[in-house]
Amino acid sequence: MGEVVSNRQVVLKNSVTGFPKESDFEVTTSTICLKLPEGSKKGVLVKNLYLSCDPYMRVLMTNAHLYFPIDFYTPPQVLYGYGVGRVLESGDPKLKEGDFVWGITGWEEYSVIEDPQKLFKINHRHDVPLSYYTGILGMTGVTAYFGFYEVCCPKEGEYVFVSAASGAVGQLVGQFAKSLGCYVVGTAGTQQKIDLLKNKLGFDDAFNYKEESDLNSALKRYFPKGIDIYFENVGGKMLDAVLVNMREHGRIAVCGMISQYNLEKPEGVHNLLNIVLQRIRVQGFEVFDYYHRYSEFLDAVLPLIQARKLAYVEDMAEGLDAGPAALIGLFSGHNVGKQVVAVAPQSSAV
Amino acid sequence: MGEVVSNRQVVLKNSVTGFPKESDFEVTTSTICLKLPEGSKKGVLVKNLYLSCDPYMRVLMTNAHLYFPIDFYTPPQVLYGYGVGRVLESGDPKLKEGDFVWGITGWEEYSVIEDPQKLFKINHRHDVPLSYYTGILGMTGVTAYFGFYEVCCPKEGEYVFVSAASGAVGQLVGQFAKSLGCYVVGTAGTQQKIDLLKNKLGFDDAFNYKEESDLNSALKRYFPKGIDIYFENVGGKMLDAVLVNMREHGRIAVCGMISQYNLEKPEGVHNLLNIVLQRIRVQGFEVFDYYHRYSEFLDAVLPLIQARKLAYVEDMAEGLDAGPAALIGLFSGHNVGKQVVAVAPQSSAV
Repeated sequence: MGEVVSNRQVVLKNSVTGFPKESDFEVTTSTICLKLPEGSKKGVLVKNLYLSCDPYMRVLMTNAHLYFPIDFYTPPQVLYGYGVGRVLESGDPKLKEGDFVWGITGWEEYSVIEDPQKLFKINHRHDVPLSYYTGILGMTGVTAYFGFYEVCCPKEGEYVFVSAASGAVGQLVGQFAKSLGCYVVGTAGTQQKIDLLKNKLGFDDAFNYKEESDLNSALKRYFPKGIDIYFENVGGKMLDAVLVNMREHGRIAVCGMISQYNLEKPEGVHNLLNIVLQRIRVQGFEVFDYYHRYSEFLDAVLPLIQARKLAYVEDMAEGLDAGPAALIGLFSGHNVGKQVVAVAPQSSAV
Repeated sequence: MGEVVSNRQVVLKNSVTGFPKESDFEVTTSTICLKLPEGSKKGVLVKNLYLSCDPYMRVLMTNAHLYFPIDFYTPPQVLYGYGVGRVLESGDPKLKEGDFVWGITGWEEYSVIEDPQKLFKINHRHDVPLSYYTGILGMTGVTAYFGFYEVCCPKEGEYVFVSAASGAVGQLVGQFAKSLGCYVVGTAGTQQKIDLLKNKLGFDDAFNYKEESDLNSALKRYFPKGIDIYFENVGGKMLDAVLVNMREHGRIAVCGMISQYNLEKPEGVHNLLNIVLQRIRVQGFEVFDYYHRYSEFLDAVLPLIQARKLAYVEDMAEGLDAGPAALIGLFSGHNVGKQVVAVAPQSSAV
């Protein structure tokens, strides 16, 4: 028998309508035996260190009135999502005690992960924070990297627009685009984020969409010659304004539409005829399709981080109890950069 | 001096708001000297034989309140569009008197075409009607062929849905899809057209969208496993319903959106989030990008027509005076198949 310890957990109490509220969650204390359950053949027991707050999680909280063929959360249940953990015991021969992993885990102090095929083992480098595997070196980074280089088919000198530009994915896309010699403008919702985009993240320009009464005019100001590539994170009115500012053969990589997730009925987008007139490609994509190329991604991005050629902004909430507020904060733009929850923070030199 | 003859012309009198009406046009009689004007260096004088009624023409009739970077009609002016003509005199050494050509010409009996680069010379085969070069062997055919084979990236066994399916482009797309071994369902707006799709054009199934109160349910009935390829000709509510019925990695080739052309403000499309969730590619395209491959197209399609392996339905209006009604009829679905106006009909053995 293993030691029985308390296990703090974030529970989603109910399906969510509209903006998620802290009262949709409950942080409770359960207990867990620090030993793999009998009968668990390939399970892995992990101590969770960092949890990732990602906009897609809102989609899983919804009631299944939508038509999506995805696995919604089934409340009440412990929330799950991407995270970084340390292996305490492994039934999978590819992992051993002490290994660090990233992948889907529970929002709790300890989790038993029954399908370790979905975990990535971290070859831990002491010069990179472990929390980065919730973001720039994890799902977020893979999304930004292949979303930009593969889905957008970018060329040097093209005009690139990024929404939610200081967010987890946007900040990376902008830097990838700059490194390729594109002209990059980002949009975000506070002056602090605009400053960050222009001063720290190297965007050519940036604007606060909340201060623009007419998004179409704003885009015409920042892109007098039009947009070649739009990296779409928000949807709705921004997409409508972008559509009338796209250049011929432009590409819209649809990563997400955070402005729509809390609406009972998504906003209507009206300017789709421009897809024909400008011969635009609108391509939805998901990170799952690129995980088999994770090592290629790491080889490209890890050296950039180590050489400090890639900036990265994290917003760290401390402790599981702060988790619900951090997650909810994504939808009001409260986070500055990648929102992470430190469950049991580790210095990089563990 | 050449002979001066009368020249019947269809004039667009004003920009059009809402559905075009016959009163937006005037059929008048002018005169023309059957000789190239002094100073016309490379012009071509043609006798127009057949004119093509195409939905995109409505977009050009609009007031420039839209954001499109295209050449609108500038009323009052003689309407222009695709047509088939016979050369009476040519300043272009590549064309000579008696040649048949297709391309952009005026809606009138005789036209001087100043830019013959845009004309295609017809190597006239006596077993194919000349009117086919307004459609299956002209712009329409090139659109359907490359739109399906290149833009849709089709594979054998895939589920294909075509809107405006009995129309000029749709009827060809459906047959191309069938010949590749796809399962093809079309939609149209009358029982006559549904019968045509099922009995003459070889679609696996077809339904009248006007008889469906819930397009989403209708699509679920015809595509219980979802849609791989949607060939989009209509836009609006149909697109919204299709989006929630697309399969993973589905493709939507956007050829046109005829349901939207007469609206002051296009309808809102709400289900765009499915583009991400199902990783859909929405690709707008225009035929201009494929004209350089016209001979490849002809080599593929002409033998199919000659071998009667490709059916083709034309709706022929007689005489220029019938032109405005024929053109307007496109937007109420009055035409059955490709709408053509016979200005000076020729038997195939001219």
